[in-house]
Amino acid sequence: MSRRTEADTPRQPSQIAILRYLRIHGPAARIDIGTATGLSPATVTSLTADLMAQGLVQESQGAANGNGNGGSTRGRPKVLLDLVPNAACVIGVKITINLIEIALGNFKGEIECSSEYSINTRDLDEQELITTLIRLIEEFVEQHKDFSARPPVGISIAVQGVCDSNSGEIIWSPALRHRNIPLAKALGTRFGGIVQMSNDANCIATAISQNTNLHRGGDFAVIMLGYGIGMGLVLNGSVYNGDFGTAAEFGHTKYQPDGPVCNCGKRGCLEAYIGDYAILRDARGLIDLPDTNSLHPSEEQMMDLVARARGGDEGLADLFRHAGKVLGYGIANLIALLGPKQIFITGSGARAYDMMEPELMHGLEQAQVPELRRGPEITHLAWDKDLALQGAIGQSLLRHDENMFQAPTAN
Amino acid sequence: MSRRTEADTPRQPSQIAILRYLRIHGPAARIDIGTATGLSPATVTSLTADLMAQGLVQESQGAANGNGNGGSTRGRPKVLLDLVPNAACVIGVKITINLIEIALGNFKGEIECSSEYSINTRDLDEQELITTLIRLIEEFVEQHKDFSARPPVGISIAVQGVCDSNSGEIIWSPALRHRNIPLAKALGTRFGGIVQMSNDANCIATAISQNTNLHRGGDFAVIMLGYGIGMGLVLNGSVYNGDFGTAAEFGHTKYQPDGPVCNCGKRGCLEAYIGDYAILRDARGLIDLPDTNSLHPSEEQMMDLVARARGGDEGLADLFRHAGKVLGYGIANLIALLGPKQIFITGSGARAYDMMEPELMHGLEQAQVPELRRGPEITHLAWDKDLALQGAIGQSLLRHDENMFQAPTAN
Repeated sequence: MSRRTEADTPRQPSQIAILRYLRIHGPAARIDIGTATGLSPATVTSLTADLMAQGLVQESQGAANGNGNGGSTRGRPKVLLDLVPNAACVIGVKITINLIEIALGNFKGEIECSSEYSINTRDLDEQELITTLIRLIEEFVEQHKDFSARPPVGISIAVQGVCDSNSGEIIWSPALRHRNIPLAKALGTRFGGIVQMSNDANCIATAISQNTNLHRGGDFAVIMLGYGIGMGLVLNGSVYNGDFGTAAEFGHTKYQPDGPVCNCGKRGCLEAYIGDYAILRDARGLIDLPDTNSLHPSEEQMMDLVARARGGDEGLADLFRHAGKVLGYGIANLIALLGPKQIFITGSGARAYDMMEPELMHGLEQAQVPELRRGPEITHLAWDKDLALQGAIGQSLLRHDENMFQAPTAN
Repeated sequence: MSRRTEADTPRQPSQIAILRYLRIHGPAARIDIGTATGLSPATVTSLTADLMAQGLVQESQGAANGNGNGGSTRGRPKVLLDLVPNAACVIGVKITINLIEIALGNFKGEIECSSEYSINTRDLDEQELITTLIRLIEEFVEQHKDFSARPPVGISIAVQGVCDSNSGEIIWSPALRHRNIPLAKALGTRFGGIVQMSNDANCIATAISQNTNLHRGGDFAVIMLGYGIGMGLVLNGSVYNGDFGTAAEFGHTKYQPDGPVCNCGKRGCLEAYIGDYAILRDARGLIDLPDTNSLHPSEEQMMDLVARARGGDEGLADLFRHAGKVLGYGIANLIALLGPKQIFITGSGARAYDMMEPELMHGLEQAQVPELRRGPEITHLAWDKDLALQGAIGQSLLRHDENMFQAPTAN
C-alpha cells in the first residue's frame, strides 16, 4: 500500500472533524464545535443534524457551563451534543510477551470490558498464533455480546516489537519466536471489517494525542522503555509510520558505533544500553544473580535490580545512570532531527526513571547544540499499560470514521 | 508563532491545488488537472474560469498529446492551461559565506534573472547585514524593472546555517559572525509582502519536491554536504520545520559521544567528521598544507585534497572514506526514525562522493537493522547551487498562493 502525496489526498470531510472533536473533548455545544473545527454555525447545525439522523450523535442536556469550553450562558442550560456510545464497537488486541489482552471499545472510545489471557506466546508458531487469536477474539465477542448488539466494525492490534503498519505484518516481536507474520490479513479474512496493526508505542501515542490533559497541541514523541525501546511519533496531528510503515524505531538509532550487541543483531543501538535485557546483562557482570531466562527478564527481576541500586549498590545504580545518559543523547538526536514540542517517557522501564533522569538531562546538555535547545518539554508518564489498548481502540475508531465519511474525490 | 494542530488547520482550497499542479507539471488539460487533484470536471471548469478571470491562468494551444499526461486525443488539439508568467513575481535571496545571490522568479516559478554579489559577509554586523541586503535588493529590483511591472509579492531567504523558520531569524550561520539576527522582520518592514526564511537545504528540498524528474512521491530527505552538513525534510508533502522552526539539523546528530569537537561546540556531531572544515582539519594532521584560513576552507583547498586523495594519498583518501562511513551511520539513524522513501545527497561536499559511497553503503549495512532495510533509494545529485534559489522562489510562491486563497474558515 503506497502512501498518497499531499496533492491527491482527499480532504477530510467536516463530519470526521466533528466526530473526532466530540470523542476527544466529550459533550460539547454546537457553538464550541464550530469554534474548534472552524465550521460556520449553519454548517455545524446541518452536519450534526445528519449525524443525529444516522444515530452517531445525540443531544444531552448539559450543565449551564458545559464542559468548560463554553462562554457565558444565561438562563436555560446549553444543549450539548455527544457521541452515541453504542453506535459502533471495535476490538483492541495487545500482544506482549506471554500475555494477550483483548478489549471492547464503544463509539466514544471508552473501554467497555477487557480480558487478559496468559499464553506462552513464544511457544506459538505463525499458524498457532493466528488460530489462538481468532479463538480468543471469538470467545471474547461471544462473552460480551451484551455490549455489542452488532459485530465489531474494526480490530486494532498493538504489538510489542516492530510492525509494518502498511501491510499489517509483525516483522519482529520479542513476544514471538517467528518473524514476518501477516496477522492483520488473517484476522481480516476471519472477522471482516478493518483490521490494522501498530506497535504498542504508536498506540500509546494515539491515546496521548486524544487526551487533552497530556497533549497540548503540536508534534510529540512518546518513548517506551521496557524490554526494548519503542517510540510513537505524532507529526502534524497523525501517528507517523513512514513510507515503509516502520518508522519511529528510536531504540535502534545508535549511541556508539562499536557499542554492545543489540537484540536486533547490530551494535550500539540505544536499546542495547537502556532495554531491560541490556541492564540485566550488564548486571550479571557485576553481581551474582539466579540463572534464569536473562533474554526476557521478568518484572520481578528488574524490580530486584532497582531495589539493590536504590539500596546502595553503586555499580547497579551506575547502570541505570548510564542508561539515562544514553537516553539523553538519543533524545538530543531526535530533537536535532524533528524538534518536537513534547516528549513523553513511559513504559515499564520507567520504573527507574528517578535514577536515570539526572544523567538524562546531563547527556542532553552535553549533546545538544545550545541554539537548538528550545524545547521540548520532557514528561515522565507513570506506566499505564492500558494506554496501549486505549490507543488501539482510538486508532480503530479513527479509521472507522474515515471509512464512513472519507470523500472519494477532493471536492 | 505557534503551529496549528490538525483540527484547526483550514482546509487547502482547490484553487491552491490547481496552481500548484500547474507550477509543477507545466501546461495541462483540464481533464488531467481533474485527475491529479481529484476535483470533478465541473469544478475544474468553474475554478479555472475564476483563475483565468483573475489573470493567474491562461489557455495555450498545446500539442495533440499535451505534455505527456494526456490520454488519447483525436482531431483537434487539446486546449492546455498554463500559469500566467507575469501574474506575480517574487524575490529569492541566498546567503552563503562571502556571497549573496538574488533572483527574480515569475509566477510559474521560473528564474527570470539573477545577480551575484561578492561581499565579505563575515565582516558585517547585524545592522550592516540588514542595510546591505536592503540596498542590494532595492538595486536589483530597480535594475530588473522590465521583468516586474508590479513590486515583488514576497521575498524568500535561503541561508547557509541554522534558521528559525517560524520567526525568520538566522540563529547561526558560518557566513556570519553574529547570531540571532531577525532578518526577515527587517526586510518585511522595508519591502512589505511576505518575507520568509529557510536554511538552504530546506530550499533545495522544496525545489526537489516540485521537480517530478527527481521526486517520485512520498517523504524524502535531502542531505547537503559542504562546509557543514544540512538537511531538508519533506514529510506529507511539505517541508518539515518542527514546532520550533529548527528541525532537520541532521549534521548535529551524533556519530560518537566523545568524538571530535564540532563547530557547534559539542562533540561527535556528523558534521565534525564530514564537513569540509573537519576534513581539512584532519588533513592538516597528515600533510603539510599552506597556512590559510582553515575555519572556512575554499573550494580550491578542498579540490586540492580530493586531487591528492585520488592521486594515491591513502591517508587523505581514508578521510573521505571515513566521512562516508559516518554518513552511512547517520543515514541509518534517519531511516530508523523516519523511514523516508528517497534520500538525496548533494552540496559542494558531494565532490568526493565517489570516494565516500562504498564506505557509506558499508556503514549503512553495519548500522541498519536488517528488517528495517526496505529502502530508501539513495541518490547522489550533482551539486547545482541554483536549486537553493529555485527552492526559495518556490517557497515564496507557495506562500503567495496560500495568501490569495487560504480560507479563513474550514468550510
